[in-house]
Amino acid sequence: MSNRSRPSVHPFDIEVPQLTEPNNGALPDETVRMKDVQGMPGTPAGLVLRVFQFAFAAVAVAVMAATSDFPSVTAFRYLVAALSLQCLWSLSLAIVDLYAILVKRCLRNSRVLGFFTIGDAITSTLTFAAACASAGITVLISSDFNNCGQNHCARFETSTAMAFVSWFLVSPSFFLSFWSLASR
Amino acid sequence: MSNRSRPSVHPFDIEVPQLTEPNNGALPDETVRMKDVQGMPGTPAGLVLRVFQFAFAAVAVAVMAATSDFPSVTAFRYLVAALSLQCLWSLSLAIVDLYAILVKRCLRNSRVLGFFTIGDAITSTLTFAAACASAGITVLISSDFNNCGQNHCARFETSTAMAFVSWFLVSPSFFLSFWSLASR
Repeated sequence: MSNRSRPSVHPFDIEVPQLTEPNNGALPDETVRMKDVQGMPGTPAGLVLRVFQFAFAAVAVAVMAATSDFPSVTAFRYLVAALSLQCLWSLSLAIVDLYAILVKRCLRNSRVLGFFTIGDAITSTLTFAAACASAGITVLISSDFNNCGQNHCARFETSTAMAFVSWFLVSPSFFLSFWSLASR
Repeated sequence: MSNRSRPSVHPFDIEVPQLTEPNNGALPDETVRMKDVQGMPGTPAGLVLRVFQFAFAAVAVAVMAATSDFPSVTAFRYLVAALSLQCLWSLSLAIVDLYAILVKRCLRNSRVLGFFTIGDAITSTLTFAAACASAGITVLISSDFNNCGQNHCARFETSTAMAFVSWFLVSPSFFLSFWSLASR
Protein backbone atom coordinates (compact mmCIF):
# COMPACT_ATOMS: atom_id res chain seq x y z
CA MET A 1 0.00 0.00 0.00
CA SER A 2 2.50 2.56 -1.18
CA ASN A 3 0.00 4.97 -2.62
CA ARG A 4 -0.69 8.62 -2.07
CA SER A 5 -4.47 8.45 -1.69
CA ARG A 6 -6.17 6.20 0.79
CA PRO A 7 -8.97 4.04 -0.65
CA SER A 8 -11.33 4.99 2.17
CA VAL A 9 -14.03 6.47 -0.10
CA HIS A 10 -14.38 3.25 -2.11
CA PRO A 11 -13.95 0.62 0.57
CA PHE A 12 -15.31 -2.49 -1.10
CA ASP A 13 -15.25 -2.52 -4.87
CA ILE A 14 -12.00 -0.86 -5.85
CA GLU A 15 -8.59 -1.89 -4.63
CA VAL A 16 -5.44 0.17 -4.65
CA PRO A 17 -2.90 -1.68 -6.82
CA GLN A 18 -0.15 -3.41 -4.92
CA LEU A 19 3.05 -2.47 -6.66
CA THR A 20 5.32 -5.47 -6.57
CA GLU A 21 8.33 -3.41 -7.52
CA PRO A 22 9.30 -0.61 -5.13
CA ASN A 23 7.99 2.66 -6.54
CA ASN A 24 11.28 4.37 -7.33
CA GLY A 25 9.77 7.36 -9.13
CA ALA A 26 9.89 5.82 -12.61
CA LEU A 27 6.10 5.67 -12.76
CA PRO A 28 5.10 8.99 -11.22
CA ASP A 29 1.46 9.23 -12.25
CA GLU A 30 0.50 5.70 -13.21
CA THR A 31 -1.18 3.20 -10.99
CA VAL A 32 -0.95 0.41 -13.56
CA ARG A 33 0.99 -2.69 -12.56
CA MET A 34 3.45 -4.46 -14.82
CA LYS A 35 1.08 -7.44 -14.99
CA ASP A 36 -1.77 -5.31 -16.35
CA VAL A 37 -2.58 -6.34 -19.89
CA GLN A 38 -4.47 -3.87 -22.06
CA GLY A 39 -8.05 -5.09 -22.35
CA MET A 40 -8.46 -6.10 -18.73
CA PRO A 41 -11.14 -4.32 -16.67
CA GLY A 42 -10.06 -0.80 -15.79
CA THR A 43 -7.73 -0.27 -18.75
CA PRO A 44 -8.39 2.04 -21.76
CA ALA A 45 -8.42 -0.93 -24.17
CA GLY A 46 -10.95 -2.62 -21.90
CA LEU A 47 -13.15 0.45 -22.13
CA VAL A 48 -12.83 0.49 -25.94
CA LEU A 49 -13.80 -3.21 -26.07
CA ARG A 50 -16.87 -2.54 -23.94
CA VAL A 51 -17.96 0.41 -26.08
CA PHE A 52 -17.66 -1.61 -29.28
CA GLN A 53 -19.48 -4.59 -27.72
CA PHE A 54 -22.31 -2.24 -26.80
CA ALA A 55 -22.36 -0.58 -30.25
CA PHE A 56 -22.49 -3.84 -32.24
CA ALA A 57 -25.08 -5.40 -29.95
CA ALA A 58 -27.22 -2.26 -30.21
CA VAL A 59 -26.98 -2.32 -34.03
CA ALA A 60 -27.94 -6.02 -34.09
CA VAL A 61 -31.01 -5.38 -31.92
CA ALA A 62 -32.00 -2.30 -33.92
CA VAL A 63 -31.69 -4.00 -37.32
CA MET A 64 -33.58 -7.10 -36.16
CA ALA A 65 -36.30 -5.14 -34.40
CA ALA A 66 -36.80 -3.00 -37.52
CA THR A 67 -38.01 -6.00 -39.54
CA SER A 68 -41.74 -6.51 -39.39
CA ASP A 69 -41.81 -10.31 -39.19
CA PHE A 70 -39.13 -11.15 -36.66
CA PRO A 71 -41.61 -12.09 -33.87
CA SER A 72 -42.82 -15.05 -35.95
CA VAL A 73 -39.50 -16.88 -35.46
CA THR A 74 -38.48 -17.91 -31.93
CA ALA A 75 -34.75 -17.64 -32.65
CA PHE A 76 -35.07 -14.02 -33.78
CA ARG A 77 -37.09 -13.08 -30.68
CA TYR A 78 -34.38 -14.75 -28.60
CA LEU A 79 -31.68 -12.80 -30.47
CA VAL A 80 -33.36 -9.51 -29.60
CA ALA A 81 -33.64 -10.52 -25.94
CA ALA A 82 -30.08 -11.85 -25.59
CA LEU A 83 -28.47 -8.90 -27.35
CA SER A 84 -30.49 -6.41 -25.32
CA LEU A 85 -29.01 -8.04 -22.23
CA GLN A 86 -25.55 -7.83 -23.83
CA CYS A 87 -26.15 -4.10 -24.48
CA LEU A 88 -27.04 -3.43 -20.87
CA TRP A 89 -24.10 -5.46 -19.52
CA SER A 90 -21.52 -3.86 -21.82
CA LEU A 91 -22.83 -0.37 -21.16
CA SER A 92 -22.70 -0.91 -17.39
CA LEU A 93 -19.13 -2.19 -17.51
CA ALA A 94 -18.10 0.60 -19.86
CA ILE A 95 -19.29 3.08 -17.23
CA VAL A 96 -17.42 1.19 -14.49
CA ASP A 97 -14.25 1.12 -16.64
CA LEU A 98 -14.54 4.82 -17.42
CA TYR A 99 -14.93 5.60 -13.72
CA ALA A 100 -11.93 3.41 -12.82
CA ILE A 101 -9.81 5.16 -15.46
CA LEU A 102 -10.91 8.63 -14.37
CA VAL A 103 -10.06 8.04 -10.71
CA LYS A 104 -6.93 6.10 -11.78
CA ARG A 105 -7.64 2.96 -9.83
CA CYS A 106 -7.27 -0.69 -10.83
CA LEU A 107 -10.20 -3.08 -10.65
CA ARG A 108 -8.21 -5.77 -8.92
CA ASN A 109 -10.55 -7.02 -6.24
CA SER A 110 -10.99 -10.78 -6.48
CA ARG A 111 -14.74 -10.55 -5.93
CA VAL A 112 -15.15 -7.85 -8.60
CA LEU A 113 -13.07 -9.83 -11.10
CA GLY A 114 -15.10 -12.97 -10.36
CA PHE A 115 -18.33 -11.06 -10.90
CA PHE A 116 -17.08 -9.64 -14.22
CA THR A 117 -15.87 -13.07 -15.36
CA ILE A 118 -19.15 -14.82 -14.54
CA GLY A 119 -21.18 -12.02 -16.12
CA ASP A 120 -19.06 -12.09 -19.26
CA ALA A 121 -19.33 -15.88 -19.45
CA ILE A 122 -23.13 -15.77 -19.20
CA THR A 123 -23.71 -12.88 -21.60
CA SER A 124 -21.21 -14.14 -24.17
CA THR A 125 -22.75 -17.63 -24.08
CA LEU A 126 -26.24 -16.18 -24.57
CA THR A 127 -25.04 -13.87 -27.36
CA PHE A 128 -23.23 -16.68 -29.15
CA ALA A 129 -26.22 -19.00 -28.83
CA ALA A 130 -28.52 -16.31 -30.26
CA ALA A 131 -26.12 -15.59 -33.13
CA CYS A 132 -25.78 -19.30 -34.00
CA ALA A 133 -29.52 -19.95 -33.86
CA SER A 134 -30.19 -16.92 -36.08
CA ALA A 135 -27.46 -18.01 -38.46
CA GLY A 136 -29.05 -21.45 -38.71
CA ILE A 137 -32.45 -19.95 -39.55
CA THR A 138 -30.98 -17.38 -41.96
CA VAL A 139 -29.05 -20.05 -43.87
CA LEU A 140 -32.18 -22.23 -43.91
CA ILE A 141 -34.24 -19.42 -45.44
CA SER A 142 -31.69 -18.15 -47.93
CA SER A 143 -29.80 -21.29 -49.05
CA ASP A 144 -32.01 -24.28 -48.28
CA PHE A 145 -35.43 -22.77 -49.11
CA ASN A 146 -34.24 -20.06 -51.56
CA ASN A 147 -37.00 -17.92 -50.13
CA CYS A 148 -35.35 -14.50 -49.83
CA GLY A 149 -38.01 -12.83 -51.95
CA GLN A 150 -40.61 -12.99 -49.17
CA ASN A 151 -38.19 -12.48 -46.28
CA HIS A 152 -35.83 -9.74 -45.13
CA CYS A 153 -32.75 -11.91 -45.69
CA ALA A 154 -30.32 -8.97 -45.83
CA ARG A 155 -31.53 -7.59 -42.51
CA PHE A 156 -31.47 -10.99 -40.83
CA GLU A 157 -27.94 -11.56 -42.10
CA THR A 158 -26.78 -8.12 -40.97
CA SER A 159 -28.23 -8.60 -37.51
CA THR A 160 -26.66 -12.06 -37.20
CA ALA A 161 -23.28 -10.76 -38.32
CA MET A 162 -23.41 -7.89 -35.81
CA ALA A 163 -24.28 -10.40 -33.08
CA PHE A 164 -21.25 -12.52 -34.01
CA VAL A 165 -19.00 -9.44 -33.96
CA SER A 166 -20.36 -8.50 -30.54
CA TRP A 167 -19.64 -12.01 -29.25
CA PHE A 168 -16.17 -11.87 -30.79
CA LEU A 169 -15.50 -8.67 -28.82
CA VAL A 170 -16.82 -10.09 -25.55
CA SER A 171 -14.45 -13.09 -25.75
CA PRO A 172 -11.19 -11.16 -25.07
CA SER A 173 -12.83 -9.36 -22.13
CA PHE A 174 -13.88 -12.70 -20.69
CA PHE A 175 -10.54 -14.43 -21.28
CA LEU A 176 -8.52 -11.57 -19.80
CA SER A 177 -10.76 -11.37 -16.73
CA PHE A 178 -10.55 -15.13 -16.26
CA TRP A 179 -6.79 -15.12 -16.81
CA SER A 180 -6.19 -12.35 -14.29
CA LEU A 181 -8.52 -14.09 -11.83
CA ALA A 182 -6.65 -17.40 -12.21
CA SER A 183 -3.16 -15.89 -12.13
CA ARG A 184 -3.66 -13.79 -9.00
CA MET B 1 12.73 -33.77 -9.82
CA SER B 2 12.36 -35.92 -6.73
CA ASN B 3 10.96 -38.94 -8.48
CA ARG B 4 12.00 -42.52 -8.69
CA SER B 5 11.75 -42.97 -12.46
CA ARG B 6 13.56 -40.73 -14.89
CA PRO B 7 11.34 -39.30 -17.66
CA SER B 8 13.82 -40.21 -20.35
CA VAL B 9 11.44 -42.33 -22.42
CA HIS B 10 8.92 -39.49 -22.80
CA PRO B 11 11.17 -36.52 -23.18
CA PHE B 12 8.82 -33.89 -24.55
CA ASP B 13 5.15 -34.46 -23.86
CA ILE B 14 4.96 -35.66 -20.27
CA GLU B 15 6.57 -33.94 -17.37
CA VAL B 16 7.39 -35.43 -14.00
CA PRO B 17 5.40 -33.47 -11.43
CA GLN B 18 7.43 -31.01 -9.44
CA LEU B 19 6.42 -31.59 -5.87
CA THR B 20 6.42 -28.23 -4.15
CA GLU B 21 6.28 -29.86 -0.74
CA PRO B 22 9.17 -32.16 0.14
CA ASN B 23 8.04 -35.76 -0.39
CA ASN B 24 8.05 -36.91 3.20
CA GLY B 25 6.52 -40.31 2.57
CA ALA B 26 2.93 -39.26 3.12
CA LEU B 27 2.13 -39.82 -0.55
CA PRO B 28 4.00 -43.04 -1.27
CA ASP B 29 2.47 -44.06 -4.60
CA GLU B 30 0.87 -40.91 -5.91
CA THR B 31 2.41 -38.45 -8.30
CA VAL B 32 -0.51 -36.03 -7.97
CA ARG B 33 0.27 -32.55 -6.68
CA MET B 34 -1.84 -30.77 -4.09
CA LYS B 35 -2.89 -28.28 -6.78
CA ASP B 36 -4.30 -31.03 -8.99
CA VAL B 37 -8.04 -30.68 -9.23
CA GLN B 38 -10.05 -33.70 -10.34
CA GLY B 39 -11.11 -33.16 -13.95
CA MET B 40 -7.80 -31.72 -15.14
CA PRO B 41 -5.94 -33.61 -17.88
CA GLY B 42 -4.34 -36.76 -16.53
CA THR B 43 -6.77 -37.30 -13.64
CA PRO B 44 -9.40 -40.06 -13.41
CA ALA B 45 -12.24 -37.51 -13.41
CA GLY B 46 -10.73 -35.96 -16.53
CA LEU B 47 -10.80 -39.38 -18.20
CA VAL B 48 -14.45 -39.87 -17.18
CA LEU B 49 -15.33 -36.43 -18.61
CA ARG B 50 -13.64 -37.31 -21.90
CA VAL B 51 -15.40 -40.66 -22.16
CA PHE B 52 -18.82 -39.07 -21.58
CA GLN B 53 -18.06 -36.27 -24.05
CA PHE B 54 -17.23 -38.90 -26.63
CA ALA B 55 -20.31 -40.98 -25.84
CA PHE B 56 -22.83 -38.13 -26.04
CA ALA B 57 -21.24 -36.70 -29.19
CA ALA B 58 -21.34 -40.15 -30.81
CA VAL B 59 -25.00 -40.60 -29.89
CA ALA B 60 -25.82 -37.14 -31.32
CA VAL B 61 -24.10 -37.97 -34.61
CA ALA B 62 -25.70 -41.41 -34.79
CA VAL B 63 -29.24 -40.17 -34.12
CA MET B 64 -28.91 -37.29 -36.58
CA ALA B 65 -27.31 -39.42 -39.28
CA ALA B 66 -30.06 -42.02 -38.91
CA THR B 67 -32.72 -39.56 -40.13
CA SER B 68 -33.25 -39.66 -43.86
CA ASP B 69 -33.69 -35.92 -44.50
CA PHE B 70 -30.93 -34.30 -42.46
CA PRO B 71 -28.75 -33.43 -45.52
CA SER B 72 -31.45 -31.01 -46.74
CA VAL B 73 -30.76 -28.62 -43.83
CA THR B 74 -27.33 -26.96 -43.62
CA ALA B 75 -27.41 -26.70 -39.83
CA PHE B 76 -27.96 -30.45 -39.43
CA ARG B 77 -25.11 -31.28 -41.81
CA TYR B 78 -22.93 -28.92 -39.77
CA LEU B 79 -24.00 -30.64 -36.55
CA VAL B 80 -22.89 -34.00 -37.89
CA ALA B 81 -19.53 -32.56 -38.97
CA ALA B 82 -18.85 -30.63 -35.74
CA LEU B 83 -19.83 -33.47 -33.46
CA SER B 84 -17.77 -35.97 -35.43
CA LEU B 85 -14.79 -33.71 -34.78
CA GLN B 86 -15.75 -33.56 -31.09
CA CYS B 87 -15.89 -37.39 -31.04
CA LEU B 88 -12.39 -37.68 -32.48
CA TRP B 89 -10.94 -35.04 -30.14
CA SER B 90 -12.52 -36.48 -26.99
CA LEU B 91 -11.52 -40.03 -27.91
CA SER B 92 -7.91 -38.96 -28.54
CA LEU B 93 -7.67 -37.13 -25.21
CA ALA B 94 -9.36 -40.02 -23.40
CA ILE B 95 -6.57 -42.27 -24.70
CA VAL B 96 -3.92 -39.74 -23.64
CA ASP B 97 -5.51 -39.45 -20.17
CA LEU B 98 -5.71 -43.22 -19.81
CA TYR B 99 -2.04 -43.52 -20.75
CA ALA B 100 -1.06 -40.77 -18.30
CA ILE B 101 -3.00 -42.50 -15.52
CA LEU B 102 -1.54 -45.92 -16.30
CA VAL B 103 2.05 -44.70 -16.23
CA LYS B 104 1.19 -42.43 -13.25
CA ARG B 105 2.45 -39.21 -14.73
CA CYS B 106 0.97 -35.73 -14.70
CA LEU B 107 0.26 -33.86 -17.91
CA ARG B 108 1.84 -30.65 -16.65
CA ASN B 109 3.87 -29.44 -19.60
CA SER B 110 2.96 -25.86 -20.50
CA ARG B 111 2.91 -26.63 -24.22
CA VAL B 112 0.70 -29.70 -23.76
CA LEU B 113 -1.72 -27.78 -21.53
CA GLY B 114 -1.86 -24.94 -24.07
CA PHE B 115 -2.58 -27.41 -26.86
CA PHE B 116 -5.38 -29.05 -24.85
CA THR B 117 -6.85 -25.66 -23.93
CA ILE B 118 -6.88 -24.38 -27.51
CA GLY B 119 -8.28 -27.67 -28.82
CA ASP B 120 -11.00 -27.69 -26.18
CA ALA B 121 -11.86 -24.06 -26.94
CA ILE B 122 -12.20 -24.76 -30.67
CA THR B 123 -14.16 -28.01 -30.40
CA SER B 124 -16.46 -26.72 -27.66
CA THR B 125 -17.21 -23.57 -29.67
CA LEU B 126 -17.99 -25.62 -32.78
CA THR B 127 -20.14 -28.07 -30.80
CA PHE B 128 -22.06 -25.28 -29.09
CA ALA B 129 -22.60 -23.47 -32.40
CA ALA B 130 -23.91 -26.66 -33.99
CA ALA B 131 -26.21 -27.36 -31.04
CA CYS B 132 -27.60 -23.80 -31.08
CA ALA B 133 -28.15 -23.77 -34.83
CA SER B 134 -29.92 -27.14 -34.67
CA ALA B 135 -31.99 -25.96 -31.73
CA GLY B 136 -33.06 -22.90 -33.72
CA ILE B 137 -34.16 -25.06 -36.67
CA THR B 138 -35.85 -27.64 -34.45
CA VAL B 139 -37.84 -24.97 -32.60
CA LEU B 140 -38.73 -23.37 -35.93
CA ILE B 141 -40.07 -26.67 -37.28
CA SER B 142 -41.90 -27.83 -34.17
CA SER B 143 -43.21 -24.61 -32.58
CA ASP B 144 -43.29 -21.95 -35.28
CA PHE B 145 -44.37 -24.10 -38.25
CA ASN B 146 -46.14 -26.88 -36.27
CA ASN B 147 -44.82 -29.24 -38.92
CA CYS B 148 -43.71 -32.26 -36.90
CA GLY B 149 -45.91 -34.62 -38.88
CA GLN B 150 -43.64 -34.51 -41.93
CA ASN B 151 -40.37 -34.22 -40.02
CA HIS B 152 -38.44 -36.35 -37.55
CA CYS B 153 -38.85 -33.80 -34.74
CA ALA B 154 -38.14 -36.28 -31.95
CA ARG B 155 -34.87 -37.36 -33.53
CA PHE B 156 -33.78 -33.80 -34.23
CA GLU B 157 -34.55 -32.84 -30.64
CA THR B 158 -32.71 -35.86 -29.26
CA SER B 159 -29.65 -35.15 -31.34
CA THR B 160 -29.67 -31.46 -30.35
CA ALA B 161 -30.02 -32.34 -26.67
CA MET B 162 -27.12 -34.81 -26.87
CA ALA B 163 -25.01 -32.12 -28.56
CA PHE B 164 -25.79 -29.69 -25.72
CA VAL B 165 -24.88 -32.32 -23.12
CA SER B 166 -21.61 -32.99 -24.93
CA TRP B 167 -20.82 -29.25 -24.94
CA PHE B 168 -21.74 -29.04 -21.26
CA LEU B 169 -19.21 -31.79 -20.52
CA VAL B 170 -16.45 -30.15 -22.59
CA SER B 171 -16.76 -26.88 -20.66
CA PRO B 172 -15.27 -28.12 -17.35
CA SER B 173 -12.36 -29.74 -19.23
CA PHE B 174 -11.69 -26.44 -20.97
CA PHE B 175 -12.01 -24.29 -17.85
CA LEU B 176 -9.78 -26.55 -15.76
CA SER B 177 -7.10 -26.68 -18.48
CA PHE B 178 -7.23 -22.91 -18.88
CA TRP B 179 -7.15 -22.37 -15.11
CA SER B 180 -4.16 -24.65 -14.60
CA LEU B 181 -2.42 -22.98 -17.55
CA ALA B 182 -3.05 -19.50 -16.13
CA SER B 183 -2.16 -20.38 -12.53
CA ARG B 184 1.16 -22.06 -13.29
